[in-house]
Amino acid sequence: MPESRPAGTVVSTLIKAPWIVTMDGARRVLENHCILIDKGRIVALLPQDQTQYSAQEIIDLPDQVLLPGLINAHCHASMSLFRGLADDLPLMTWLNDHIWPAEGRWVSDDFTHDGALLAMAEMIRSGTTCFSDMYFFPNVVARAVKDVQMRAQLAFPILDFPSAWAQNADDYLRKGLQLHDAFRNHDLIHIGFGPHAPYTVSDAPLQKVAAFSAETNMPIQMHIHETAFEVEDATLKSGKRPLQRLHELGLLTPQMQAVHMTQLNDYEIALLAQTGTHVVHCPESNLKLASGFCPLAKLLEAGVNVALGTDGAASNNDLDMFGELRTAALLAKGVAQNPSAVPAHQALAMATINGARALGIDQVTGSLEAGKSADLIAVKLDDVSCQPFYHIESQLVYATPSSQVSDSWVAGKRLMKNRELTTIDLPAVLKRAAEWKTKIAAQDKPS
Amino acid sequence: MPESRPAGTVVSTLIKAPWIVTMDGARRVLENHCILIDKGRIVALLPQDQTQYSAQEIIDLPDQVLLPGLINAHCHASMSLFRGLADDLPLMTWLNDHIWPAEGRWVSDDFTHDGALLAMAEMIRSGTTCFSDMYFFPNVVARAVKDVQMRAQLAFPILDFPSAWAQNADDYLRKGLQLHDAFRNHDLIHIGFGPHAPYTVSDAPLQKVAAFSAETNMPIQMHIHETAFEVEDATLKSGKRPLQRLHELGLLTPQMQAVHMTQLNDYEIALLAQTGTHVVHCPESNLKLASGFCPLAKLLEAGVNVALGTDGAASNNDLDMFGELRTAALLAKGVAQNPSAVPAHQALAMATINGARALGIDQVTGSLEAGKSADLIAVKLDDVSCQPFYHIESQLVYATPSSQVSDSWVAGKRLMKNRELTTIDLPAVLKRAAEWKTKIAAQDKPS
Repeated sequence: MPESRPAGTVVSTLIKAPWIVTMDGARRVLENHCILIDKGRIVALLPQDQTQYSAQEIIDLPDQVLLPGLINAHCHASMSLFRGLADDLPLMTWLNDHIWPAEGRWVSDDFTHDGALLAMAEMIRSGTTCFSDMYFFPNVVARAVKDVQMRAQLAFPILDFPSAWAQNADDYLRKGLQLHDAFRNHDLIHIGFGPHAPYTVSDAPLQKVAAFSAETNMPIQMHIHETAFEVEDATLKSGKRPLQRLHELGLLTPQMQAVHMTQLNDYEIALLAQTGTHVVHCPESNLKLASGFCPLAKLLEAGVNVALGTDGAASNNDLDMFGELRTAALLAKGVAQNPSAVPAHQALAMATINGARALGIDQVTGSLEAGKSADLIAVKLDDVSCQPFYHIESQLVYATPSSQVSDSWVAGKRLMKNRELTTIDLPAVLKRAAEWKTKIAAQDKPS
Repeated sequence: MPESRPAGTVVSTLIKAPWIVTMDGARRVLENHCILIDKGRIVALLPQDQTQYSAQEIIDLPDQVLLPGLINAHCHASMSLFRGLADDLPLMTWLNDHIWPAEGRWVSDDFTHDGALLAMAEMIRSGTTCFSDMYFFPNVVARAVKDVQMRAQLAFPILDFPSAWAQNADDYLRKGLQLHDAFRNHDLIHIGFGPHAPYTVSDAPLQKVAAFSAETNMPIQMHIHETAFEVEDATLKSGKRPLQRLHELGLLTPQMQAVHMTQLNDYEIALLAQTGTHVVHCPESNLKLASGFCPLAKLLEAGVNVALGTDGAASNNDLDMFGELRTAALLAKGVAQNPSAVPAHQALAMATINGARALGIDQVTGSLEAGKSADLIAVKLDDVSCQPFYHIESQLVYATPSSQVSDSWVAGKRLMKNRELTTIDLPAVLKRAAEWKTKIAAQDKPS
């Protein structure tokens, strides 16, 4: 209890702002409060006129709202180097003629590293403090995340077929578990399983994933029911819908983060709720690839925890969670034919506390509460595009471009100060991106 | 022909940029060209190394793409003062308990003026150079537009019931036609009819509108088939779908701009194509109010000219055409279940040349071609959120936030220079908006 500390306790940082959207269980929005931070954690949220604390650093943000840093629960960070490489194409042309050949040619240690830095720069500048990645060379991504000091879940890939990173399913598993051991006690980096999709991973490795996860509580992230074709094809070949197969393999648990889920019947929605399986909704990627509409309002109504992700920049084409949460809120209303579906607070929850729950780190992050890590952002609302506004949460969801994010902290470390990144050498990252672009463009078939 | 002019001809302005997306009939994208402007018009687009012109002012934009200024073909500008006043509510609660009471209480000469300036500031800063407005006191909006020097169509409202601006349908018509006469020869301001909707305007005034428009070619903008309820209710009461009624009244012509159109059968799509009726698609408002999905891909395939609009900030909640064209392109793919539907070029066309066609001003604006008005914007692509990119049009559509718009010109007049507005006193506009907000919030029922 903050009140029990003696008056005059010194903390490292005190941030004042006219609004604090806490995303706590009571859905509190505090006016004219401050956040006190010490040793990377939130010590207290107090009215600005209460003075029992002094701070080494006082930050006054008179035009800003503070909220939990956004959690991008699904992306392929390094694919930012392929941003817009191939758009407006049928799915199989996109994959077969562009994305897979480009990955086959370019994905390497260096590519993954440079792409991850580029993605993190874009994510921090658009309000994300924590992301889940699923890509080759997760060991390299881990190194980049460590340098940048974001929070991340790295779901290491598992596939039946070889890549530049691993030879076969067992090799992916072995390398991934090594990585898990290496980061077992890391504060910011969490390693999970990333079996790619039901149609690319066979039963044997999935059974191993289920067994390991049951033993260790390690999270699992997997693309599931992304398209109608995936479901139809599997049903035709095996007589079973993919989700049912995964359930029989023991994979539907509170450790499972099921990404996309555009094809769901009522039985499956109930099954997700009953098993505590999390859903990661990626509305912009689903629209762009015409994958189908995730029944978001129905899932939330059934009590399923739904987080939000951008997917990779090759199918979005940005990593902007403010854009994504707005699209999620708007699209859900259209799909549900109900303008009250997924109101502003729920959209914000998907991008914050629900994301933390899905990733199994809601004891640490996802809301602004005493005891949690100081993972937060400040958003400026004085721009003409934000004025006037009447309700702070609805303003954040429906009319706040991510370019209004001014500052970002992860575990109390300020990763962005008035739009300047503090842990990334942005000119160097952009220079490397330009070099990759020249090489990649020279080899890509004209689309 | 620019080539026939003597070398050394002096023009007022020369703008250099690495990319120019012309949106002309040949869909040309020019690299390392410049645009020559004189007396408000485009004189030529030439490679930068050709030197037969000299200019009084040379503007070098080495990180920018130039494209036609965006055309927001449907909004209610002054409603920006109600931005986010009431969100996430059923349509009738939104209208009956919030929007209509607020309009009844606040709409006046001053409100309309201050709201229009606020909206224009947001629109210029997000890349719009031309907009169509439909709101009370269009005479006041006209004055504000004249001061700001944007291009606008003002579709004066016509309703069966009174408002602060007019007493009855004849009074709206009389005042509107007076306004039309006053601006008959104005270069930037075009006056059209704005009969609100089939359910708010009876046959007699609509017949007058049809007759006037047939005589003068004045454009007509009208909300049509916005919701399923509108169509069902009219069919129940009259045995006729609203579009059929309007057709019988002679209103479906190339002068008609039909806004929303979320409810359309194949017969109606063919009817729109056959009569040359334009459609103005407002995807974000349609999603937010759960109005339904406009069959965009089908309309375009049938040859209907479809423009794009944001609708008012009370149901969007911004006037950001970059966001809107992205949503339009993404949503169309989802609705058509086809990732190739509405590709990037088509989305840009909707926001530029199609908008000009719908408004009947495509001889003047909507593309960058010699002879047309110099209505253009510059967009910076050096931000991390835009890098790298492979295809300029797809980059503009899928991953360019409107905050990247750096400069704007209308008829050669620079309305924004490196994000600074030149014809609007922004601090004064924001101050007035804050004053209105305080008054309006004090009277709005808690939602």
